[in-house]
Amino acid sequence: MRALVYHGPGSISWDTVADPVIEDPGDAVVRVETTTVCGTDLHILRGDLAEAAGGTVLGHEAVGEVVATGDGVRRLRPGNRVVVSSVSACGRCRPCRDRMFGQCRGGGGWILGHLVHGTQAEYVRVPFADHSTHRLSFSPSSDEAVLLAEVLPTAYEVGVRNGEVGPGDTVVVVGAGPVGLATVAVARLYSPRRVIAVDLSTARLKAALRMGADAAEVPGRMIGELYDGPGADVVVEASGEPEGFVLCTRAVRTGGHIAVIGTPGRSTTLHLESLWRKNVTISTGQVDTSSTPWLMELLRFGRLRVSPLITHSLGLERAVEAYEVFSHGTASGALKVALHHWRDDGGSGSVEQRG
Amino acid sequence: MRALVYHGPGSISWDTVADPVIEDPGDAVVRVETTTVCGTDLHILRGDLAEAAGGTVLGHEAVGEVVATGDGVRRLRPGNRVVVSSVSACGRCRPCRDRMFGQCRGGGGWILGHLVHGTQAEYVRVPFADHSTHRLSFSPSSDEAVLLAEVLPTAYEVGVRNGEVGPGDTVVVVGAGPVGLATVAVARLYSPRRVIAVDLSTARLKAALRMGADAAEVPGRMIGELYDGPGADVVVEASGEPEGFVLCTRAVRTGGHIAVIGTPGRSTTLHLESLWRKNVTISTGQVDTSSTPWLMELLRFGRLRVSPLITHSLGLERAVEAYEVFSHGTASGALKVALHHWRDDGGSGSVEQRG
Amino acid sequence: MRALVYHGPGSISWDTVADPVIEDPGDAVVRVETTTVCGTDLHILRGDLAEAAGGTVLGHEAVGEVVATGDGVRRLRPGNRVVVSSVSACGRCRPCRDRMFGQCRGGGGWILGHLVHGTQAEYVRVPFADHSTHRLSFSPSSDEAVLLAEVLPTAYEVGVRNGEVGPGDTVVVVGAGPVGLATVAVARLYSPRRVIAVDLSTARLKAALRMGADAAEVPGRMIGELYDGPGADVVVEASGEPEGFVLCTRAVRTGGHIAVIGTPGRSTTLHLESLWRKNVTISTGQVDTSSTPWLMELLRFGRLRVSPLITHSLGLERAVEAYEVFSHGTASGALKVALHHWRDDGGSGSVEQRG
Amino acid sequence: MRALVYHGPGSISWDTVADPVIEDPGDAVVRVETTTVCGTDLHILRGDLAEAAGGTVLGHEAVGEVVATGDGVRRLRPGNRVVVSSVSACGRCRPCRDRMFGQCRGGGGWILGHLVHGTQAEYVRVPFADHSTHRLSFSPSSDEAVLLAEVLPTAYEVGVRNGEVGPGDTVVVVGAGPVGLATVAVARLYSPRRVIAVDLSTARLKAALRMGADAAEVPGRMIGELYDGPGADVVVEASGEPEGFVLCTRAVRTGGHIAVIGTPGRSTTLHLESLWRKNVTISTGQVDTSSTPWLMELLRFGRLRVSPLITHSLGLERAVEAYEVFSHGTASGALKVALHHWRDDGGSGSVEQRG
Repeated sequence: MRALVYHGPGSISWDTVADPVIEDPGDAVVRVETTTVCGTDLHILRGDLAEAAGGTVLGHEAVGEVVATGDGVRRLRPGNRVVVSSVSACGRCRPCRDRMFGQCRGGGGWILGHLVHGTQAEYVRVPFADHSTHRLSFSPSSDEAVLLAEVLPTAYEVGVRNGEVGPGDTVVVVGAGPVGLATVAVARLYSPRRVIAVDLSTARLKAALRMGADAAEVPGRMIGELYDGPGADVVVEASGEPEGFVLCTRAVRTGGHIAVIGTPGRSTTLHLESLWRKNVTISTGQVDTSSTPWLMELLRFGRLRVSPLITHSLGLERAVEAYEVFSHGTASGALKVALHHWRDDGGSGSVEQRG
Repeated sequence: MRALVYHGPGSISWDTVADPVIEDPGDAVVRVETTTVCGTDLHILRGDLAEAAGGTVLGHEAVGEVVATGDGVRRLRPGNRVVVSSVSACGRCRPCRDRMFGQCRGGGGWILGHLVHGTQAEYVRVPFADHSTHRLSFSPSSDEAVLLAEVLPTAYEVGVRNGEVGPGDTVVVVGAGPVGLATVAVARLYSPRRVIAVDLSTARLKAALRMGADAAEVPGRMIGELYDGPGADVVVEASGEPEGFVLCTRAVRTGGHIAVIGTPGRSTTLHLESLWRKNVTISTGQVDTSSTPWLMELLRFGRLRVSPLITHSLGLERAVEAYEVFSHGTASGALKVALHHWRDDGGSGSVEQRG
Repeated sequence: MRALVYHGPGSISWDTVADPVIEDPGDAVVRVETTTVCGTDLHILRGDLAEAAGGTVLGHEAVGEVVATGDGVRRLRPGNRVVVSSVSACGRCRPCRDRMFGQCRGGGGWILGHLVHGTQAEYVRVPFADHSTHRLSFSPSSDEAVLLAEVLPTAYEVGVRNGEVGPGDTVVVVGAGPVGLATVAVARLYSPRRVIAVDLSTARLKAALRMGADAAEVPGRMIGELYDGPGADVVVEASGEPEGFVLCTRAVRTGGHIAVIGTPGRSTTLHLESLWRKNVTISTGQVDTSSTPWLMELLRFGRLRVSPLITHSLGLERAVEAYEVFSHGTASGALKVALHHWRDDGGSGSVEQRG
Repeated sequence: MRALVYHGPGSISWDTVADPVIEDPGDAVVRVETTTVCGTDLHILRGDLAEAAGGTVLGHEAVGEVVATGDGVRRLRPGNRVVVSSVSACGRCRPCRDRMFGQCRGGGGWILGHLVHGTQAEYVRVPFADHSTHRLSFSPSSDEAVLLAEVLPTAYEVGVRNGEVGPGDTVVVVGAGPVGLATVAVARLYSPRRVIAVDLSTARLKAALRMGADAAEVPGRMIGELYDGPGADVVVEASGEPEGFVLCTRAVRTGGHIAVIGTPGRSTTLHLESLWRKNVTISTGQVDTSSTPWLMELLRFGRLRVSPLITHSLGLERAVEAYEVFSHGTASGALKVALHHWRDDGGSGSVEQRG
C-alpha cells in the first residue's frame, strides 16, 4: 500500500510499504477513509520525539472501514465504519480499568504513528481494536468524524471538563490552533457568558470567530481588563508556550481554573507569590478519549458544530503537501487538513480550501 | 490594656495601649485567654507586608471570652467562650454568601493584626463578630482551641480537601512547620496508607513523627523512590520555597494532586514539559475558615489529636519572647507558642517547653 | 397601604392594612413593583398550612425599590432596585454559613407571606434584608426579574443541579407547571439532547413547547419508549403527585437521576425491588436561592429566556382575580400571573394575556 | 470434580460434575481455595431467581489459583493467586468502558453461580478472566481475601461512597448482616463521629460491636433521638426490608444521604410529603467491583480490619452444611462462612466457630 513514512528528522515521503496484517488476536485492520495531520506529527518531523523510529508510518487519527479482525476481537466486524482513536487501550491494566486509557500500561497509550505504524496510509493495523475504535452510530461527514479521534475529546476532557466550564462563565482560550478552537466549540455546550480567543495570528483569530468565539484578540485590551478586573472563570492554555501560561495565571479570577491543554516543550514560571491566595486550580492532562462516544452523540444530534475546523481537504496521496499546508497554519489560518482516501477516483487532485 | 505592638520593620514591643471598644454595631470585644504567633506575623515584622502600619497590635488567632457586643450582634453574648477566627467575614458580600470568607469584599478577610488591631493583647475588638467567631461547643484546652482559629482550617481546606486525600493514599507533606504538621494530623482522618513529612530540619522531622507522620526525612531516599516509582497520590507544599514546589511536581504520581498551602514569597518553575501528560491538579488557596465548626466537633469527639503542635506555653506579657522562640523554630523544633492571659496570677513566668 | 390578606381557609381579600415599618435594624422596606402568585399561596388558601395565621398578607416573590433600611443594613440604600427572595436568611446560623439559606435556623427560611406579612402588597418589610434581597445588576423587565425570587433558583438548584443535567442528556420533566417549565428553560443551558415535558393538561403541554421543550405529551408513547428502552438520564418530578413520582422511577435509566422538585402532599411508592440494581439517585430539596445572583447574570446576558412563563399581567389591586386565574392554570395554560404596582396610573385595568 | 449443585427450589447437593475447561479464549480456570455463601445464593435456593437453572453450580465469590488460561488472556498465568470477582466484565461494552462493570452488556455482570457455573466447587471457569479477577498483591489470609470478591466492594461502592461518609459523621447502618457489617468497617476509614448499627437480632448487634460499631440497638432510644433531633448524616439501608427503608428516611438529617445497599424484594413507602424539604439524596446501586484493587491495598497495609466477618470456616465438601449455618445467621450471629478447599488434607472436618 501507499503511506506517509517518516525517515528521520526533516524527512517524510509518500512511499509504497507492506500492507498491514493481523499480528495479534486483538488487532483489526482498517481501510482509512480520512486521516489528518496533528501538531505532534510536526514534533516528530522536527526530531523532538526520539522514540519515533525512521521507517514509521505517521498519523494517529482516522475514520475508516474495518477490513479484517483478529480472533480475539468481539465488537467489530469487517464492514463496520469506525473512528480510530489516537489512544490505543489494552483495556485490562489498572489505568484502563480506571478509564485513564491515555495512561495505559499494557502496551497501549499513544502508539499509532509513534511507536507502531499509523493512520496516514491506505490501511492501518489497530492494536487492541475493541478498546481503540468507536463504531459510528450515524453517518457523519468523515471530516467531522475524524475530529473524534483526538481533537474533540482533548478539547472536552483536558480543556472544558478539567476547566469546569459552566453557564455564565467567562472563558479565555489562549492559543487558537485546532485544539484551542475545538475547545471554543465544546465550551459553548455549557452556555458560557462569553468565550474569548487569544492568539498572535490574526488569521487564527478570524478562525476563532468562525468557530463561535464571542471575541478574539492579540493579547490586548480585553485581556488587560481581565487582569485588572474580576478575571476569567476558566482559562485554557492551548498555545504550548511559556508566555501563554503566564498570561493564563494573570487572567484567571480568584477561585477560577486554568486548564493546560497545550503540549509545552519548555518549563514556565509559576507566580505562586501572587497565586497562592487566589484559590485557583491548574490542571494538566493527556487525552483518554473516554468521552468519544458521548461526543459522537452530540455531533449526531446537532449539539456540536465543528465543521469550520476542517479548512482543507485533499487526497491522501498528497499527504506530504498536507504537512506543508498544516505547518503554516499560524500564518495562513489553516486548521485541520483532511486527507481522504477516495475509494473510486482518488479525489479532485487539488487542494480545496473551505469556508 | 497591654498589647504587642508593631512599630515598623524589625520593631515590636509590649506596650500599654487604649482598650478596644465597640465601634460598629456588629463588633464584639473579646478578652483574650490564649493567642499565638504565626509565620505571617514574622513577615510583618520583617517589613514584607507594607500595608501593616506602625502602631498596629499584631496577632490573628485567639480563644477568649466575649465581654461586650454591639447592638447588631445576634449570636453572641458577654460570657460566651469563642474562637476568634483569623478571617473576619462581613457575611453579606458575594464571596461570603458563597462561603469564601477569606475573599470577603465587604471589609473583612484577614484584617486582624494586619489592618486593624489584633489578638496579641489583653482584649481585642472583633469586627463582624457574628461571622468571625465560633462559640465553643465544649471545653477544650485553649491550647488546642486556638488552633481552630487558623492552623487547622488551613490544613484541612487548603491542604487535605484541595489535595483530595483519601483512604490508602500516599501523602507527602513538604515543609514540617506548624501548618504542614497540622496537615499531617488532619490527613490521618482519611486513613492514608502513609504520610511522609519532608523538611531540612531534623528537629522538625522529629516533630512530624510526633504528629503522626509514618516517616520523615530530609529529601532523600524515600522521595527519590517516589520520583522513580509510582509517585505520591497527594503532595502538600507547605514550605513556601520554590524548591519545595519543584520537589512536589516530581514526587506526585500521574493523576495526583499538589496542594499549595505555603505562602511563597517568590515565583517558582513549573515543569510543564513533563507535567502536561501527567494529569495532575495544582491548587492554591487562602483559608476561608468555613470548616472551623466541623473541625471543632472532630476535636470534641477525639477524632483529631493535635496537642503536640503546641510546644511552648507562656504568659501573654512575654509575647516578645514568644516571637523569639517561634522565629527559631526551624532549628529548635518549636512549633506553636501559646500565649496565655492567665486571669489571676499571670502565669508561671517561665517558658514551659512541652512534650 | 393596600394588600392581599388571608383571612383563613378559602378567604382572601384586597384590604387596607397598616404600612410596614422597620422593626429590626436588619430590616428594609421595599415598595413592590411586581409580585406574583405561587402554588404555595394556593396551599395556604386551602388551609393546608395551619401555621399561616389569619390576617397575614400573602406572597413571597417580588421586585421592587428599597424605600427604607434599618441601621444594621449595609448593602442596600433607598432607591436600590432589588429582587426580594422567597427565602429570608439570617446569614449567621450554621445552615446560612453553609449556603443552605432555605434551612435557616436563625429566624429566616420561608417566612414571607407565611409567618410574616408578604409581598402581595404595596410595600413589604423584608427581614435580614442584606441576605434576603439581590440588587438588580441591570434593568430587566420586572416580569422576568420576579422569577428570580423563587421560580428560577428552584428550577436550577432543586431540578437541574441536583439532577446533574449535562450535554447530550435526555431530560424528562414530569409536571408542566411554572416550576417544571422553568426547569425546561434552565436545563437548556446544558445542551441536552432533548427535553420532554409530560403533563395531563394539553394547555400546559403547549406551554412547554413554547418554553423550549423538544417534545411534550400526556404520558404515552415517548414515555413508554423510555420505560422499555434506555431510559432518561435525568427525570425531574415537578407534579407533586405520587403517580408522577412512580413514572419518574420507571423512566429513568440505569445510572440516572431523579430530582424531586414538586411539593407533594402525600407519600408515594418506591419500587426498590426494581430500582436497587439501577444505580439511581433520588434527590429532594427546598430552594436556597443561593444561585440567584448567577441566574441574574444569565438573564442579563441573554443566556436564559423565560418570558413565556409570564402569561398574565395585571394591576396589583386585582390580586384576588390573579388567584382565580392562576388556580385554573392546569386547564387554561395560565402560568405565572404578574401583579404590577404601576407607579403612575395603576395599569390598564384589564387582564392582559400574553404570547 | 465435586461441586455444590442447585437442583431447583429447595434442593442443593454436593455432587460430582464435569471439570470446567477453557471454552473461550478469554477464560481462565481457577482452582478454588476459598469460597463462601451469599444471601443471594439463598434467594436462588428459595426459587426467587427463576433464571437460575437446575444443574447450576452455585457461588460467586472465591480466592484461588489460576490453573489454565485461554489464548486471549493477557494478565494471568497458571500459578497466579487471584480473587474471583462476583462481577464478570467483558471490558469492552459501553458500561464496562465507563467502569460500570456490574451493568456489563457484553455477556458479563453477575453470571457466576447464576447463569453459568459458580465458585462453590473445586474448580471454576471464569469468563473474561482479565477483567473478572484481581491478582493478589500480597498474601492475605484467604478468609479476608474472599471478602474482596463482593462484600467489601459492595460496602464501599454502594454504601460508603454513595452515602458520602466523611469525618465527624453520624452513620447509621440498618441491618447488621455481612454487607451491613462490612459497611461499618469501611465507614471507619473516614473517621466518622459514631457508627450506629441497628438490627432486630441481638446476636447481630453483638457482631456489629465486634466489627467496630460505636453502638448497636434494636430500633429504640438512639434511633428515636435521631428522629427527634438533628438526624444522621448518612443512613445505609442494608436490611432489604421496607420497614428498614422507612426508618432510614426518618433518621436522616436535613441534607443527609440514604444509601440503599440491601436487595429488597418488595416496594416500600417514600414519605415525600416530609422528605421534599429535607434536601436528601437516596441512592441505589449494584456493585461494580471497580474498587477491589484499592480495597486490596487497604487490607494489605492494615487500614481495614474485617476478619470478624468470617465467623465460620469449614471444608469445601461441607458446603451444604454451610448453607444451613449461614441461613440461620440472624438468630445465631453467623456471618460469612468460609469454605476451604484444603490442598493436602481436606481440613479438620469440623465446623470451626471463631471469635
